[in-house]
Amino acid sequence: MKVAFLGLGVMGAPMAGHLARAGFDVAAYNRTAAKAEAWYEEHGRAHGARVAASPAETVEGARLAFLCLGDDPDVAAAAREVLPVLPEGAVLVDHTTASPALARRLAEEAGAAGKGFVDAPVSGGQAGAEKGALSIMCGGEAAHVERARPAMESYAARIVHIGPSGHGQLCKAVNQICIAGLLQALAEGMHFAGRAGLNIERVLEAISGGAAQSWQMDNRARTMVADEFDFGFAVDWMRKDLRIALDEARASGARLPVTALVDQFYADLQAMGGGRWDTSSLIRRLTDAD
Amino acid sequence: MKVAFLGLGVMGAPMAGHLARAGFDVAAYNRTAAKAEAWYEEHGRAHGARVAASPAETVEGARLAFLCLGDDPDVAAAAREVLPVLPEGAVLVDHTTASPALARRLAEEAGAAGKGFVDAPVSGGQAGAEKGALSIMCGGEAAHVERARPAMESYAARIVHIGPSGHGQLCKAVNQICIAGLLQALAEGMHFAGRAGLNIERVLEAISGGAAQSWQMDNRARTMVADEFDFGFAVDWMRKDLRIALDEARASGARLPVTALVDQFYADLQAMGGGRWDTSSLIRRLTDAD
Amino acid sequence: MKVAFLGLGVMGAPMAGHLARAGFDVAAYNRTAAKAEAWYEEHGRAHGARVAASPAETVEGARLAFLCLGDDPDVAAAAREVLPVLPEGAVLVDHTTASPALARRLAEEAGAAGKGFVDAPVSGGQAGAEKGALSIMCGGEAAHVERARPAMESYAARIVHIGPSGHGQLCKAVNQICIAGLLQALAEGMHFAGRAGLNIERVLEAISGGAAQSWQMDNRARTMVADEFDFGFAVDWMRKDLRIALDEARASGARLPVTALVDQFYADLQAMGGGRWDTSSLIRRLTDAD
Amino acid sequence: MKVAFLGLGVMGAPMAGHLARAGFDVAAYNRTAAKAEAWYEEHGRAHGARVAASPAETVEGARLAFLCLGDDPDVAAAAREVLPVLPEGAVLVDHTTASPALARRLAEEAGAAGKGFVDAPVSGGQAGAEKGALSIMCGGEAAHVERARPAMESYAARIVHIGPSGHGQLCKAVNQICIAGLLQALAEGMHFAGRAGLNIERVLEAISGGAAQSWQMDNRARTMVADEFDFGFAVDWMRKDLRIALDEARASGARLPVTALVDQFYADLQAMGGGRWDTSSLIRRLTDAD
Ligand SMILES: NC(=O)C1=CN([C@@H]2O[C@H](COP(=O)(O)OP(=O)(O)OC[C@H]3O[C@@H](n4cnc5c(N)ncnc54)[C@H](OP(=O)(O)O)[C@@H]3O)[C@@H](O)[C@H]2O)C=CC1
Ligand SMILES: NC(=O)C1=CN([C@@H]2O[C@H](COP(=O)(O)OP(=O)(O)OC[C@H]3O[C@@H](n4cnc5c(N)ncnc54)[C@H](OP(=O)(O)O)[C@@H]3O)[C@@H](O)[C@H]2O)C=CC1
Ligand SMILES: NC(=O)C1=CN([C@@H]2O[C@H](COP(=O)(O)OP(=O)(O)OC[C@H]3O[C@@H](n4cnc5c(N)ncnc54)[C@H](OP(=O)(O)O)[C@@H]3O)[C@@H](O)[C@H]2O)C=CC1
Repeated sequence: MKVAFLGLGVMGAPMAGHLARAGFDVAAYNRTAAKAEAWYEEHGRAHGARVAASPAETVEGARLAFLCLGDDPDVAAAAREVLPVLPEGAVLVDHTTASPALARRLAEEAGAAGKGFVDAPVSGGQAGAEKGALSIMCGGEAAHVERARPAMESYAARIVHIGPSGHGQLCKAVNQICIAGLLQALAEGMHFAGRAGLNIERVLEAISGGAAQSWQMDNRARTMVADEFDFGFAVDWMRKDLRIALDEARASGARLPVTALVDQFYADLQAMGGGRWDTSSLIRRLTDAD
Repeated sequence: MKVAFLGLGVMGAPMAGHLARAGFDVAAYNRTAAKAEAWYEEHGRAHGARVAASPAETVEGARLAFLCLGDDPDVAAAAREVLPVLPEGAVLVDHTTASPALARRLAEEAGAAGKGFVDAPVSGGQAGAEKGALSIMCGGEAAHVERARPAMESYAARIVHIGPSGHGQLCKAVNQICIAGLLQALAEGMHFAGRAGLNIERVLEAISGGAAQSWQMDNRARTMVADEFDFGFAVDWMRKDLRIALDEARASGARLPVTALVDQFYADLQAMGGGRWDTSSLIRRLTDAD
Repeated sequence: MKVAFLGLGVMGAPMAGHLARAGFDVAAYNRTAAKAEAWYEEHGRAHGARVAASPAETVEGARLAFLCLGDDPDVAAAAREVLPVLPEGAVLVDHTTASPALARRLAEEAGAAGKGFVDAPVSGGQAGAEKGALSIMCGGEAAHVERARPAMESYAARIVHIGPSGHGQLCKAVNQICIAGLLQALAEGMHFAGRAGLNIERVLEAISGGAAQSWQMDNRARTMVADEFDFGFAVDWMRKDLRIALDEARASGARLPVTALVDQFYADLQAMGGGRWDTSSLIRRLTDAD
Repeated sequence: MKVAFLGLGVMGAPMAGHLARAGFDVAAYNRTAAKAEAWYEEHGRAHGARVAASPAETVEGARLAFLCLGDDPDVAAAAREVLPVLPEGAVLVDHTTASPALARRLAEEAGAAGKGFVDAPVSGGQAGAEKGALSIMCGGEAAHVERARPAMESYAARIVHIGPSGHGQLCKAVNQICIAGLLQALAEGMHFAGRAGLNIERVLEAISGGAAQSWQMDNRARTMVADEFDFGFAVDWMRKDLRIALDEARASGARLPVTALVDQFYADLQAMGGGRWDTSSLIRRLTDAD
């Protein structure tokens, strides 16, 4: 089956690679051509994939087209080029973390032209993309999700159809809201422990099996304490995601006091030059003053 | 071996029961006699335990004495009565969540009289106490912790010696700091999802295997959404624990902005009549205005 | 001199009235015609003003055109209709609290067409508009501000040229940032005093001459305590203004932790049905739980 | 009339000087003798005052005794020495910012011994003390306040009897609550203005006459922007005062979310070495990361 993949960044490149490896006939595209070339050498050539010269060309004849770009304007621009060319009956799947409003609008536009649209943001990070073990949260019509599922299974450990268009993005927003405050709490705990002179390994041994446990505690507490942030999910991306969440909350009447506060703390990190640090770097705001 | 247990409340009663069941010669005491009687019927009689008439009498001849009381003044008062009577070489173990400063003072007083003191707050809640599966975080001398370990094993799944006196309490404070902000983040996530009309089961299916995962998400997200809070760890207790954490931070120079804020949100719950609700009730502050 | 005024709401109506009274030849317009009629009866007829049938007609032949609408989209829509018709050399003055980005864009568009644009948000509230005692903070070219000044003086006590286009709106954002946190602090102080049973009059007598003094304390503390919020500057407007401030901070790298938090508290008030309450109603979030 | 003054620090020294200058027969005391000597040279000698060798000696025969010390333990210690010696019918006035609980306890102890006690914290700062223009907020019996009033008038511009014992301290807590959040809001406003490149003088000209106005804006905005903090009311004192306010709120059930948060921001400043900076230095947390 012919499929298209646009956006060969940190996430998109390994995802498109899994598609090719799984036997799909992949046409790939990246704005910066060098990345497309690198992708072709690493993932494409050996599995019969090809690199296309433009977004429009990428989706010609494709049954499925995937996007994994940066933010709303990128997705809107790509969709503008891609939707008219995408064959009728094909489905456009957007893996970018973008706004629910954009997802709803694109689903409508696609629908009006007899095409499908699924908002399908992912979680699992670079490691999940490389291992092909992402979680994908989908918004859209069930039929469209099912049509995209076999392809997505090449890079996903879990694909959940959350609800109608936009619900994939809303679910991702829930994910980020839960993480932001949790990470700040973990940072405060580790900072407090450091100030008190506690042995962190023993603290984690004592508390990580109980009510304070979290994926972040299991996977980030030690690197936080070791002051290592040169990996993972970047602060700049987190701010984008929290902006989406806070805008949506404004529209729906939800109140997110700690999320709004931690978003400002992430802005502190950006001002400290930490836009590319992992989101667990919140502890840096506390230790840097020391 | 003769052991004493003072404080047969929600946590202490099952803990003392486990001691008796494990074959320790238990003398138990509770300020309110009715609870001591109930304990005797449920846990004591069948295993040869007895109820004592006063704190002092409880610890006569004991090699180990355990406290599981409410707050600093309660522990200070009990220690005043108990320490002079406790035999030399015996160890007083305090399972109350109390201040590190009190732990340090009592360890000194006990030490000066040739006795041991271990601050040993627990986590795992009522369920953990009943199942005998608590986590215990110990502060004090290794020799004292080791002397108390066999008895504590009757109700603990995990006993960690964190460090010198006070470090047990400090570790518990870390635990509570991590929980407070995490729960508020989870509450905001669930509240946001509710406002957006998401299917919560599917949201949890999609996100609870990833970076947003936490014990609280696994065990409290559904009850939060179902508005069930009549169980678990009470808001009033949490406020006491956060007071200890915030006071200690003041002394050590640690900064806990989100913890301080969530502590005030817990005060909102108390003003709403929720002092006995489970700590996950933070979502109530958000939904009640709806 | 012929001048146009579009937007005869709470603020615009008395402002346009002052212009007519000061002898300007006013053409006025309001989307909802009934308000334009009412304005004509109250302010227009006696001073030779007239009501126009469309935005375009309003500005025909005008040397100055004023807008006092709601939010960005309203201003953008009005400007689209008005700028092409506005005579060359005329100046469009926007009194709406809107975004600095929009102001910069409209200044450019106007400039390209040989017309002037001044962003000129006001402070002073309904009372200030009625008394003709507003403060106006202007962004744009000095020559354009000066051309508009004589007309604006009919309703302003103070007109300050802050800087280039957008600086009027940015100055207004500073104003709102300073107010939001200040009002929450005042609400907490009054709430604390109430809980402590203090005599508020004496408290204010003691502290309102010193370092805690503020316009809000002088003018809102008593109404806060009396639970009166049916007047003044509405929570809904404040949320719009804080959205502008927070968006701008995101762009400029400024950090506004308390502003972001209080913005969420204002969302609590909206959820409580208080979108039209005065901004001092923050105390309601504290007292309602009582 | 014989009066005693204990605590010749930044505040106490000029206050005691005003008493001497006003013709009171002053006996003064300071723990560190050097300060007492300096006071004698600057204020005492010329007006017939004397320096006493101990707290007890200072109050011998005095009708009024004043304290202006640091914190609760200091006041408690001084009262222990002074109350037994103070003549019956005399009044002990405490100008220290201390806890309402201590005030209530000392009023009881004094009353039982036939003496009066007034909690009388001040505002107005070092400048107010030197100019004799403090505001004094009094808690206690009206008769005791009246007896102390003529002496206090030598250094006060305003003396308000707020209510029974403790109400002076509670009023001071209200003052500090109002200031903390207000200063953070002002810091955010000035920081935002700086990032936006606004001309601060014009901004202040435009907004300081309106709803954003405050004593702090009039007196601290310019020094904030000029990064000057080597004067005024120290962060360390503010943290003490906020601790008192937050402890009291815990007892009364008041909720102070922004105050609690800003208290943690002041802890940031302490960690940055700013314990002695003026409380307006909150802007430093924002600009230092730049
Ligand atoms: N990194 C992570 O751990 C995770 C990221 N995400 C989300 O996935 C998305 C992608 O992230 P990631 O791969 O890390 O980001 P990268 O920055 O590595 O990749 C972004 C990709 O988008 C392309 N792109 C951006 N703007 C445009 C545009 N206007 N037109 C065409 N192409 C464009 C880039 O092209 P070019 O190479 O030319 O710049 C690049 O290929 C984001 O929305 C992110 O929030 C979700 C979960 C985890
Ligand atoms: N109220 C106050 O105390 C203060 C308000 N401000 C700011 O001033 C502005 C006006 O406030 P206020 O007068 O109170 O608001 P009102 O709601 O009373 O008036 C708004 C005016 O804008 C018109 N309008 C809104 N949208 C459009 C549109 N798309 N096309 C044409 N007309 C439109 C309305 O017309 P219609 O009658 O048809 O709805 C109405 O005349 C706001 O930006 C506000 O933030 C600033 C300082 C103080
Ligand atoms: N500074 C200001 O702007 C304002 C201060 N206040 C409050 O006024 C009080 C005093 O402030 P300030 O004068 O600035 O502080 P200083 O530190 O300058 O002075 C404190 C005084 O208290 C004495 N003291 C402290 N502890 C003891 C003790 N245990 N026994 C005997 N004497 C003791 C000190 O003696 P020694 O010289 O021996 O150290 C010193 O004389 C504080 O509570 C402060 O919060 C209120 C409003 C404004």
